[in-house]
Amino acid sequence: MSGSSSAPPADELSAVTLTDSAAAGVAEAEFSQRVLIRSIIRRPDGGAGLAGQRVRVGGWVKKGRKQRAIAFLEVNDGSCDANLQVLVDAELVTTLGEVTVAQIVPTGTCVHVEGTLKVPPEGTVQRIELNVEKVLDLGTVNAAKYPLPKTKLSLEFIRDYVHLRPRTNAISAIARIRNALAYATHTFFQKHGFLYVHTPIITTSDCEGAGEMFQVTTLINDAEKLEKELTKIPADLEAAKILAKDKGEIVAQLKSAKASDAEISAAVSELKIAKENLKKLEEKSKLKPGIPKKDGKIDYGQDFFARQAFLTVSGQLQVETYACALSSVYTFGPTFRAEHSHTTRHLAEFWMVEPEIAFADIQDDMNCAEAFVKFLCQWLLDNCRDDMEFMVEKFDKNAIDRLEMVAATGFVRLSYTDAVAILEEASKEVNFENKVEWGIDLASEHERYLTEVKYKKPVIVYNYPKGIKAFYMKVNADNKTVAAMDVLVPKVGELIGGSQREERYEVIRDRILEMGLPLEPYEWYLDLRRFGTVKHSGFGLGFERMILFATGIDNIRDVIPFPRYPGRADL
Amino acid sequence: MSGSSSAPPADELSAVTLTDSAAAGVAEAEFSQRVLIRSIIRRPDGGAGLAGQRVRVGGWVKKGRKQRAIAFLEVNDGSCDANLQVLVDAELVTTLGEVTVAQIVPTGTCVHVEGTLKVPPEGTVQRIELNVEKVLDLGTVNAAKYPLPKTKLSLEFIRDYVHLRPRTNAISAIARIRNALAYATHTFFQKHGFLYVHTPIITTSDCEGAGEMFQVTTLINDAEKLEKELTKIPADLEAAKILAKDKGEIVAQLKSAKASDAEISAAVSELKIAKENLKKLEEKSKLKPGIPKKDGKIDYGQDFFARQAFLTVSGQLQVETYACALSSVYTFGPTFRAEHSHTTRHLAEFWMVEPEIAFADIQDDMNCAEAFVKFLCQWLLDNCRDDMEFMVEKFDKNAIDRLEMVAATGFVRLSYTDAVAILEEASKEVNFENKVEWGIDLASEHERYLTEVKYKKPVIVYNYPKGIKAFYMKVNADNKTVAAMDVLVPKVGELIGGSQREERYEVIRDRILEMGLPLEPYEWYLDLRRFGTVKHSGFGLGFERMILFATGIDNIRDVIPFPRYPGRADL
Repeated sequence: MSGSSSAPPADELSAVTLTDSAAAGVAEAEFSQRVLIRSIIRRPDGGAGLAGQRVRVGGWVKKGRKQRAIAFLEVNDGSCDANLQVLVDAELVTTLGEVTVAQIVPTGTCVHVEGTLKVPPEGTVQRIELNVEKVLDLGTVNAAKYPLPKTKLSLEFIRDYVHLRPRTNAISAIARIRNALAYATHTFFQKHGFLYVHTPIITTSDCEGAGEMFQVTTLINDAEKLEKELTKIPADLEAAKILAKDKGEIVAQLKSAKASDAEISAAVSELKIAKENLKKLEEKSKLKPGIPKKDGKIDYGQDFFARQAFLTVSGQLQVETYACALSSVYTFGPTFRAEHSHTTRHLAEFWMVEPEIAFADIQDDMNCAEAFVKFLCQWLLDNCRDDMEFMVEKFDKNAIDRLEMVAATGFVRLSYTDAVAILEEASKEVNFENKVEWGIDLASEHERYLTEVKYKKPVIVYNYPKGIKAFYMKVNADNKTVAAMDVLVPKVGELIGGSQREERYEVIRDRILEMGLPLEPYEWYLDLRRFGTVKHSGFGLGFERMILFATGIDNIRDVIPFPRYPGRADL
Repeated sequence: MSGSSSAPPADELSAVTLTDSAAAGVAEAEFSQRVLIRSIIRRPDGGAGLAGQRVRVGGWVKKGRKQRAIAFLEVNDGSCDANLQVLVDAELVTTLGEVTVAQIVPTGTCVHVEGTLKVPPEGTVQRIELNVEKVLDLGTVNAAKYPLPKTKLSLEFIRDYVHLRPRTNAISAIARIRNALAYATHTFFQKHGFLYVHTPIITTSDCEGAGEMFQVTTLINDAEKLEKELTKIPADLEAAKILAKDKGEIVAQLKSAKASDAEISAAVSELKIAKENLKKLEEKSKLKPGIPKKDGKIDYGQDFFARQAFLTVSGQLQVETYACALSSVYTFGPTFRAEHSHTTRHLAEFWMVEPEIAFADIQDDMNCAEAFVKFLCQWLLDNCRDDMEFMVEKFDKNAIDRLEMVAATGFVRLSYTDAVAILEEASKEVNFENKVEWGIDLASEHERYLTEVKYKKPVIVYNYPKGIKAFYMKVNADNKTVAAMDVLVPKVGELIGGSQREERYEVIRDRILEMGLPLEPYEWYLDLRRFGTVKHSGFGLGFERMILFATGIDNIRDVIPFPRYPGRADL
């Protein structure tokens, strides 16, 4: 164990490459009694140099076949996309109990085995295989009942088995790519001195006055509990009345019998308790079933947080409080939209990366966004080559080319006004569904045209019309546009949206009022402008969009482990 | 920009140390037009070697005073706990507009300035200061209204100003420590080949059948919308009836006037639309206001996810689906409890780290937990020395000693049975509030006794009685205990709870039934045991508990940026 080491050298940090064991030998999977299949198979020599080594391996059978008394198993442990061929003799299996060798070949079987690595006979594809000498544990599968047999399954089909689909090649490759992008995100911002801030999931603020929000409440549960209690109340009340009467009579009897002070005071205190209990029940019996109301409206004073609470739609406003104190910060967490979107691009629960930088203007913001996207692309090229090659083979032949292009190319920067001029010119030849004119919000088809057709590289459009953007964006000197920017990339269109924030108190207050929003919920936000205000900027990157961009996968439901959308929240 | 670099060398990775600029000069805060104050003041020479350099700096005034025509400002930018002394001549300020030099000295003022670093006169504390030559931006403060003046403020007081409290020394130091622990967490698991998995926040599973859960719903909002619509229905219905009648008459007239087919069919289609609209309104008018019910119960079929949904209390069960496919995984995300706890140790929203390891037993699990905690402690010692020294000075004189002890000491491992024997022996001398006997759940006082009094170091207690633990824990051969383990540390008691999971299908099914839980919601979880089952283990670390342990802060509400607890969810 290397528990007491400090920051490890970079080559150890990368979970998805194999640098250490390539030279030295196999890599132990620490805290688990086996070596990583990656460390055998992903060496430059395909593992051949390890012949003769005794290793322990664990994983799941991808494909298996029985030939005479030997099981040939292609085993995968999730450490990489490749499988290790594992040979198990029937005798070794049968000694374990009532298992037969035929029972360990079905797809999905779990094997935990020990053996010696050897070079297979000439003419086979693999350059190393494991000759098992001891079977440690087996987890069999009833092939007739297993929902994910080895036949090719569509992403749509396996979506109904979110608990088993990580065992498929596609979902496990996506999981490794997602993991790499998450760690690359933290590495990028930490390297640049940003602090990671956990903004709240439950919020009492509404980020933009837009976006449907999920409500978080205990009122319904409390109402159901109360309803159950109320049905018991009449009987309890009757019993409590009798008890209080009895206790009263006892006191009276003791007094008239001139009992001792101790006896009387004991009886009095019992009477007191009985009366208090009765009073509580009487009060409770007056409660009405259902969600509590006050003046005809739901009484959120009785909800868990004593006010109406929601799931956050963005951590931006909250993280600004930390940017206005600690300068460079970011959040990376789940966000929510209760919109009934059934598209391939929307989820009710998704992850967002939101940096926020003090003393930074819109140019700095664009510089940061561009550097971040390039860093993510380069990270995948450096650390996920195998999984990216799998994506190219199975899903999108351009996936690696796209990453290389973005990592190596300067992003085009274009004002909204220039973008509209280009699109107006283009619409003489291209048939856009949505008419282009200054003032519209660019539609997806316009964004895709700019990045995929016109420039064939990432495009940042900035300085959008004030009327189509949020109140917190900095009003430019022209008083017509705001310092907003969107990063558009081939394949997904808008990947990032950001802006310089309006730091002038009077201007932002007026913008809130102009938009018909109430001031009160934003008083804390206005405080950031009242007290020591600072120029600052930030943006949001939709994490799943980034994965769609990287992998070429079409449906967002396949790039998040547990997708949530209207009508569906499995597990 | 270094956007296209791959994994950076380790010394660049650490956001909270200064290695690069110590030798070479000041460090630019990238994507923001200034240098980091940390890179000036936290050099081994205190910055003296930078005299003569021209730099741009931004930050907030911690303390300021005016002496003749010069403002002496101690400025902090959040990059470290130390301030840079900044000298501003009145003339530079007044040229900026209507600001006077007296207006820039209040605590909380934001300054963005350019100037030359110089060595201050003999006899001053600081070894470098900034002589301002140009004031770029100012954000003033009305000192009379600013809630956080420079007087010493209690943590409790500033809790009412969550949006401004990151500007205080204590909260900013805690924010840097929290950030460091979060990045250390990712680094530890990535280094050991674990994949980061985003388990769902919105869930339709209940992890343990215990723990109060928050409900996530759109039913209340939908009901309120419907209620508003229903009030308008009578009028709309009346209008729709008239319209339909009119359209019908028009058709009749056209027909009797033998109008053209085109005219008639146009009128017919208008009539059709009017009739459809009327039908919709009639259907809507039959809806009852309030939350939809079916058979006397709330009809969750009409909720967003078509069933009842909650906020997760733990990602464990879900992340097991990934462990049973990709071997070594972890989650790090927010979790929720709707419990009315008003203690200094509970939050309604808190963050948890939950690794899950396939092919690992309870011993491996303890090894992982111990290595992880040690790694976190050493990381803080290596990367947060200044902030830890601040904690020692202001909050807990033992904070650094405790980190050093844990990083360097092997954890005691003690079976529950042995722990109870020790506590029974101890109870002859120590007055425990809760009686000790085999079978009880250890109380906090017992845990604290073991780790703080008896061993004075971290203690792992394992193999707890079956009856007090969750259904998913592996039943030991004695059939009395389960392979559960808790890591106890001085100052906070239980820091980690974990277990080997029951991988035997029949055993876990029977345990679910034994506990009176329904099988149906756990069918997916049982599938992991039906198909290719695997020995696996994992644990959960309460992230805020770790911060309490590290910093010595007493109240959990002070170590999370936006605390949520009964009656309170600011922002």
